[in-house]
Amino acid sequence: MSRYLIGIDAGATKTLGVLWDKNGQEIKRVVKGFCNFNVDFLKSQKNLEKTIEELLFNLSGKIKIVIGTSGYSYFEDPLAYQTELAKKFQTRVVFKDDGYLALNSIDNPNDLPVVLLISGTGSIVYGKKKNNYYRFGGHGHLLGDQGSAYKLAISAFKEVIYELDNNLLLSSFSKLFLKTVGISTLEEIKQLVYKSEKGEIANFAKIVYGLAESDATAKKLVKQASFDLLEQTKAILRKMAVNGNFILALKGGLMENSKLLKADYLEKLSALNFKYQLSKNNRESVYGALKIGEWL
Amino acid sequence: MSRYLIGIDAGATKTLGVLWDKNGQEIKRVVKGFCNFNVDFLKSQKNLEKTIEELLFNLSGKIKIVIGTSGYSYFEDPLAYQTELAKKFQTRVVFKDDGYLALNSIDNPNDLPVVLLISGTGSIVYGKKKNNYYRFGGHGHLLGDQGSAYKLAISAFKEVIYELDNNLLLSSFSKLFLKTVGISTLEEIKQLVYKSEKGEIANFAKIVYGLAESDATAKKLVKQASFDLLEQTKAILRKMAVNGNFILALKGGLMENSKLLKADYLEKLSALNFKYQLSKNNRESVYGALKIGEWL
Repeated sequence: MSRYLIGIDAGATKTLGVLWDKNGQEIKRVVKGFCNFNVDFLKSQKNLEKTIEELLFNLSGKIKIVIGTSGYSYFEDPLAYQTELAKKFQTRVVFKDDGYLALNSIDNPNDLPVVLLISGTGSIVYGKKKNNYYRFGGHGHLLGDQGSAYKLAISAFKEVIYELDNNLLLSSFSKLFLKTVGISTLEEIKQLVYKSEKGEIANFAKIVYGLAESDATAKKLVKQASFDLLEQTKAILRKMAVNGNFILALKGGLMENSKLLKADYLEKLSALNFKYQLSKNNRESVYGALKIGEWL
Repeated sequence: MSRYLIGIDAGATKTLGVLWDKNGQEIKRVVKGFCNFNVDFLKSQKNLEKTIEELLFNLSGKIKIVIGTSGYSYFEDPLAYQTELAKKFQTRVVFKDDGYLALNSIDNPNDLPVVLLISGTGSIVYGKKKNNYYRFGGHGHLLGDQGSAYKLAISAFKEVIYELDNNLLLSSFSKLFLKTVGISTLEEIKQLVYKSEKGEIANFAKIVYGLAESDATAKKLVKQASFDLLEQTKAILRKMAVNGNFILALKGGLMENSKLLKADYLEKLSALNFKYQLSKNNRESVYGALKIGEWL
């Protein structure tokens, strides 16, 4: 009888499902819409179950499904939902949160504490030490997400607004930033920020870290972001009571694409004498399913 | 032939219209929905014109209409819209922004510079010096509004989140704040903040300045708000190049209802040796129409 594993990273932006055979060879991959139970239970359920259905299509054998989802805290009793899914699809199911999946995707042969810092549109830090899991920050753009692409973009708009509000001559940063965004007035800034999706605003962070190579103001804003990320890292290390070596994994669009941000962050962390090993094998979170499912 | 003046404060929350006779006696008052041309042109136009129609109903004589509106910056050519309204209603019309109306509602017999600080759901500072008008701040909750009720409420939620994130014992402030809000977990905070209207969140500021009478943390948050308002006041005074006496008018729900905020703000302002006279006659902005329309 064939054995299969299905791993699902059910995220706030998209749901990614992967089917592996018994040797860990990827056979099929499916992408559906978002899955965040705190945002919309029914749509999330639909996207998650459609992902499972497509991966199960025409499949027979011994199957296990490992899910890591965003909005996990919606469930007062996640085990009940896990049982419901297991019954519905006649498979074994492990139902966990997205941080759990992500942390288990990080290579960690010596079972060191792991810190995973994600800075994309939003920001969050996850931690794992032995069998304990931790999280710090996140909470979205109104209550947190310091050091995220969204916050970096907003800080750039605020910089420009400060100059406009004070009738100052526009700095070269503001001129270049506005020109690249394609607008020129305070009203246009407001219209853009209040009418755009969070992800669209976060996208403007690219302009800021692009300019940071040569512009002092852009550099200051990027360094503020790396400082904010450092504060969150320090907080989770305190929470985890980590004193010695740990594995540090850095993910997310902003962290992966801004060389300055990453270098500045690591430099500050090293200066504080933290002993980290940078995770070099940054696989997709969905690979955490292989470890959680005790595959291979 | 009878003479009448209509004043309209076309605001982001409601549109208030008042009809006065030639002696400045109020005859009628009408309230309609919001009017912010930057948010929704058609709805704003409808609410504004319905206000005018109801006030004009059965009226004959010599009539002048003075309008101060939010979202005024939407118009590239406000005079064209003023002419359109004048034609449509066969009256004289003065079409200005809400700050202009509000500044002219403040008693100022000696023609001193005037600073009007509004801290309600949002915050903004307007200034007038001779015939020049100024504004500073505002820009809404994503880009500004420091020292507003919305920001004060968010700062309280962040205080609680900080303790929860760091696994600290909840402070007495956090316990009391959450109890009064009627929630107890991080998830409930997030659901509340992300699913509520801005005004509903701003409403929680009342709890904070209520607690500030006896609680050190609440006091700290209120004092931060008054500091933020002071910074905006200093900025507009710089912008207006005010050195000597000026009239200071304080408006908005937060400023009017938190004794601590107002006292702390005034104390800090006095300590900086600014020479202000507090405006004691805080009439509604719509009364600015009497001055702008050169009534009485």
